Amino acid sequence: MELFEVIQKRHSYRNAFAPGPVAREELIKIVNAGLLAPSACNKQSTRFLILDDPAMLARIAAMPDAAPCLKSTTALILCLTNTTPQPVFQGLHFELQDCAAAVENMLLAITALGYASVWIDGWLKNKGRAEQIAEWLNIPAHKTIQVILPVGIAGEPAARPVKKPFNERACFNTYALP
Amino acid sequence: MELFEVIQKRHSYRNAFAPGPVAREELIKIVNAGLLAPSACNKQSTRFLILDDPAMLARIAAMPDAAPCLKSTTALILCLTNTTPQPVFQGLHFELQDCAAAVENMLLAITALGYASVWIDGWLKNKGRAEQIAEWLNIPAHKTIQVILPVGIAGEPAARPVKKPFNERACFNTYALP
Repeated sequence: MELFEVIQKRHSYRNAFAPGPVAREELIKIVNAGLLAPSACNKQSTRFLILDDPAMLARIAAMPDAAPCLKSTTALILCLTNTTPQPVFQGLHFELQDCAAAVENMLLAITALGYASVWIDGWLKNKGRAEQIAEWLNIPAHKTIQVILPVGIAGEPAARPVKKPFNERACFNTYALP
Repeated sequence: MELFEVIQKRHSYRNAFAPGPVAREELIKIVNAGLLAPSACNKQSTRFLILDDPAMLARIAAMPDAAPCLKSTTALILCLTNTTPQPVFQGLHFELQDCAAAVENMLLAITALGYASVWIDGWLKNKGRAEQIAEWLNIPAHKTIQVILPVGIAGEPAARPVKKPFNERACFNTYALP
């Protein structure tokens, strides 16, 4: 699918997925798109744990306030950063940005392959959920689950959020925005 | 251009650009790709200031340690976040992530349209450069320049950084990475 069409089509999907697995080759294509994202000083700081084990997915699905997509997904991509982000340039670190760029590449890949997803971040960081999932999965303490992406075929229609027009967010040469 | 081809082709370009302007319609297409990126709770927190004013570009080009692409660019997209990031969910804020997702969409758009760029972040945050540029541009204190993207036609060959293979950064179900 053509890039600008994919960018236009991508939107968050929180409803239930249609039943059925996502082939591992598809998940590998999606994560490969994440691996190719830019990262500060090319450190490639983000790691990816792909879950398609039904028992573990069921445990996560049963967590409080899980969205319908999480309750019904057969594949989940966990994006991990270093718990203590590593400085790469003049004492600065960019692991959140590295991870976000990888997530965006994967969301576009998911869309292009005909799947749906949503960037789950706040839910994870609330009420110790990321720590609980990390414990179940024996993720070492030096890695933190930063974002999770369920992957599946959209099972229901979903509203696209409205985006502000260009003139409310962008301008040329002179800053003229709220 | 097809999404996966664009993702594969995109790489950082720091060398000099070929001479010549970038049409405003092209810059608008690029920034529109950024506007369509996901953002936490759809808050669309990132703002974009597009510079194609030669006098202002010359001032930025003359700053210490500017990369050749910055010295030669005729267009620069400044990505701004709130200086005090706004919490959007359970006291958490995600403006760095919102901005990074928009930047990645724009880098892909830049690549698809035949231009080159590089995500400039650390240089900006070092030695007060972001604050200096914000002052020149009368950017209000509640906005911070987070990332800048020069846009131009690559004027020289540039090395693509090597990416780690899948197995060094990703795995299925059981965490088995360094």
